[in-house]
Amino acid sequence: MSRVHNSALSAAVAAANARKPGPSRSLRVAIFGFGTVGSSVARILVESEPRGLTLTHIFNRDIARKRVDWVPAGVVWSGDADVVLTSDVDVIVELAGGLDPAGSWVRRALETGKSVVTANKKLIAYHGIDLERLAAAKGGHLKYGAAVAGGIPVIPGLEQGMAGDRIERLEGILNGTCNFILSKMEEGAEYSAVLAEAQKRGYAEADPTEDVGGFDARAKLAILMRLALRQQVDPDEIAPRSIITITPVDFSYARDLGCTIRQVSRAQQVDGGLAAAVGPMLVALRSPLAWSQGTENMVIVNGHYGGDVVFSGHGAGGHPTAVAVVSDLLALAHGSQRVEIPSAPARLGAEFEVPHYIRFMVKDRPGIVAAITTALANEQINIRAIVQKPGYPADALPFVVTVEPCKSSALQRALHSIRGMDCMLVEPLDLQMLE
Amino acid sequence: MSRVHNSALSAAVAAANARKPGPSRSLRVAIFGFGTVGSSVARILVESEPRGLTLTHIFNRDIARKRVDWVPAGVVWSGDADVVLTSDVDVIVELAGGLDPAGSWVRRALETGKSVVTANKKLIAYHGIDLERLAAAKGGHLKYGAAVAGGIPVIPGLEQGMAGDRIERLEGILNGTCNFILSKMEEGAEYSAVLAEAQKRGYAEADPTEDVGGFDARAKLAILMRLALRQQVDPDEIAPRSIITITPVDFSYARDLGCTIRQVSRAQQVDGGLAAAVGPMLVALRSPLAWSQGTENMVIVNGHYGGDVVFSGHGAGGHPTAVAVVSDLLALAHGSQRVEIPSAPARLGAEFEVPHYIRFMVKDRPGIVAAITTALANEQINIRAIVQKPGYPADALPFVVTVEPCKSSALQRALHSIRGMDCMLVEPLDLQMLE
Repeated sequence: MSRVHNSALSAAVAAANARKPGPSRSLRVAIFGFGTVGSSVARILVESEPRGLTLTHIFNRDIARKRVDWVPAGVVWSGDADVVLTSDVDVIVELAGGLDPAGSWVRRALETGKSVVTANKKLIAYHGIDLERLAAAKGGHLKYGAAVAGGIPVIPGLEQGMAGDRIERLEGILNGTCNFILSKMEEGAEYSAVLAEAQKRGYAEADPTEDVGGFDARAKLAILMRLALRQQVDPDEIAPRSIITITPVDFSYARDLGCTIRQVSRAQQVDGGLAAAVGPMLVALRSPLAWSQGTENMVIVNGHYGGDVVFSGHGAGGHPTAVAVVSDLLALAHGSQRVEIPSAPARLGAEFEVPHYIRFMVKDRPGIVAAITTALANEQINIRAIVQKPGYPADALPFVVTVEPCKSSALQRALHSIRGMDCMLVEPLDLQMLE
Repeated sequence: MSRVHNSALSAAVAAANARKPGPSRSLRVAIFGFGTVGSSVARILVESEPRGLTLTHIFNRDIARKRVDWVPAGVVWSGDADVVLTSDVDVIVELAGGLDPAGSWVRRALETGKSVVTANKKLIAYHGIDLERLAAAKGGHLKYGAAVAGGIPVIPGLEQGMAGDRIERLEGILNGTCNFILSKMEEGAEYSAVLAEAQKRGYAEADPTEDVGGFDARAKLAILMRLALRQQVDPDEIAPRSIITITPVDFSYARDLGCTIRQVSRAQQVDGGLAAAVGPMLVALRSPLAWSQGTENMVIVNGHYGGDVVFSGHGAGGHPTAVAVVSDLLALAHGSQRVEIPSAPARLGAEFEVPHYIRFMVKDRPGIVAAITTALANEQINIRAIVQKPGYPADALPFVVTVEPCKSSALQRALHSIRGMDCMLVEPLDLQMLE
C-alpha cells in the first residue's frame, strides 16, 4: 500500500483503499536530534497522543546519554542515521540544525519519498526551493512552520490565510536572543553583562555570533521574503549589522527621541527594487515592534488589500517550537497540502530611504559639529536634530545627530569622511529609525 | 470528469486524469452577495488573477443596480439564486450574512457537492458543525476563515499552526464597531456622538444592537471556542453585556487605575468547567488588548506548550475580509484540506474569578460607602480600592469601588441589595478587570 503522505493522489488512493475518511493510518514519525526541541516534540506526542501520529524512532549521536524513561518502550533509540533513514518511517522530523549533516539527512529522506518536517531555518533559507522541488518530485512533503518565529503561526498564516493578498512590506523581530539582550539593556544593563546572563539561561550560545551578528535573523528573513514578498533571495546578499555596538548611552538617547532599540529584520519593494536589512534599529515606543520583551518574536506584514497584520508570541524555546513541529505533522496526517505561493529569483537592488540616528563619541573640541554637519550637507542629507545630553565627560562625549530620510549609501559616504576626524574615539554608530 | 474540489480523493483522481500536478483546472467561483466584501472579492480576483480561480457568477437581489463595468464580460450576473446554485460553479462564496436565506443557499450548495467559502459568523456559530458534516458527506468543503477577525489569519493559524498545542484560554477584541466606539470614547467623546460618527463612516448599522450589544462578538467567540478550546457551545449560552452603559467618567476612572475599556470576548477552562463572557471590560494599558485602536481586531490564545500568541490587524472592512475569502479559495484550489480539530459539545458551567470595577452614580449623603462595603462584605468580597475623583457635583456623584477577584454571581448578589438604595441614580456598572 502506498504511504499516505505521498501526495494528494496516493493519500486519496490509500484513503479509498482503507474505505474511511481522515487519516487512514498513523504516520510513523522519527525525530532527528533529541535536544531541547526534539525532547519537547516527543513530550507533546507522548502526552497528547494526537490522532494520526506515532513516534517510532529517535536518532541522536551518542544516543545512550539521551535516553529518557517517559518515552514509550516501543520507540527505537538509534545513534545510526542510516538505520532510521532506511526504516519504514513516514516522516523525518529534522531538529539537528545547520547545513550539514542535517541537509544530507533531509535530502536522503525526501529522495526515498518520505516527508520531512524541520525547524532548520538555515537549510530552508539556502536550499528550501531545491528541497521543495525534490519533495514534490518524489511524492513527499517538506514542512517548516517551525523555522521562523517558532510557536507563532506566521508561515501557516501567510500560506493559508494571506495568500489572497499582495504583501508589500514585512518587518520582524526574528531573533529571541537579540530581543532578550536589547530589552534587558533598555532597563540599563551593559551588553556584556546581559550576554553572560543570556548564556547562563541558555538563550545564547557560547559563541553568540550567529544570533547577535544577525545571521540567524537574515536566514529567517529570507524565508519570509519568499513566502510574503514572493522573492527568492540568497541570504548572503543581506548584510546583517551586529548589535554589539549598542551601548546604554544609545538607549538613553533613543528614549529621549520617543524610541527604543530592537534588532529588526525588514524587507520591502522600494521603487521597483527590493530592499532588505537586518540589524539594530530605533523603533518608536508606540509601535508594535517596541512591545516585544524578552525572547519574544514578532512579525508584521503589510498587505496591499488587508493592511498591517501583526503576529506575536514566543518565537523560540523547546515547547513553542515543538508546537509548530507537531502542527506540521498533524497537517501531514490530515493530508493538508501547502498552498504553494509562487516566487521568483530576485536580487537586492534598492535601498531603504529612512531617517537615521547617528551617535558619535568624541574628545570634545571646537568645530566638531560644524565638520559633521558640513560632511552631511555635502551628501544632501538634512539634519533633523542634534541632541547632546548633559552629564558626560568632555574627553568621551557622546552626542547624537538625527537626519531626515536618506539612503544608507549617501550616509555611508558622509560617515566615511567623518570617521577620519581625529576627535572620533569610536566608529560612529548609525541606525535606521522606523516611524 | 469529477469536480476537482470534491474531496482529496476525487481531487487526486481528477489530477491524475489531467496528468499534471497542482490545480488541474480553475475552480469556477460564484459570489453570493455583491456588497462591500463581495465587490472586494471580485476586485481581488479580477486584479490579481490568482491561479486556479475563475469568477463565473455574481448573485444579488435586484442585480441590475449592482452591475459594475470592471468585471470581465464573461461573468454571469444573476438575481436568481436557483440559477446559480444549479449551474456548474464549483464554489459558492456566501457573503449575504445572517441565518436565512444564506443558510439555505449554503446547504443547497453543499448538498450538491459544491464547496462553500463564507464570512458568515452567525451561520457558522450556530450551524457550523452540521454544515461541516454535510460538506464531508457530499464531498465538498466548507471554509470560513473570514468569519472571525476578517483579514487576520486566526483560523488558519489555529488549524494549521497551533493544532499541536492545547489551548487553555482565549481573549479577543472581535468587534471592530465596538473597538472604534470605545477607543474614540477613550479620547473623551460621548457614546452617542461616536456611534453617530461610526454610522456615518459605515462602521455601524442603523440598528447597532448586533454590534454594541455583543451578539456579533459572541458568535465569533463561539467559533473560536470550537477551534481553540475544542468545545462546541451554543452561542445563546453566552450572555453578552452591552457597551452602551459606558460613560466618559468610566474612562477617566479606568485611566487612574492604569487601564482603559475595551469590548472583550473571553473563554477559558476554569476549575474543570467552561467560562465565557462578552462585554466591556477594563484592560491594563500595558496589555496587548489596549493596543487595538479604531476598528482593529485582536486575538490572544494561550497554549499549554506555546504560551501566548497574539494576532492583530484589520478584522473587518471589505478588503481585509476579502483577503481571507480569496485565501480560502486558493486553499481549495490547491487541495489543501483543513486540519480537522476534534471538538465536543459543551455547556458553560463555570465563572471567571477576577477583580471587578464597580462604578456608582449617587446623590451624595452620609453612609453610602458604609452600606456598599457592608453589602460586599456580606458576600465575602474584599475591597481593593475606593476611588472618588474631585470635580463632580454632589447630586450626581460618580465614584468607583474595585474588588479583589470574585465570582460574578457573588457580586451580582451584593449589587442586588445595593441597587435598591434610594441614593442610586443609575444602575451600578460592574466590569471585569483583566490583569
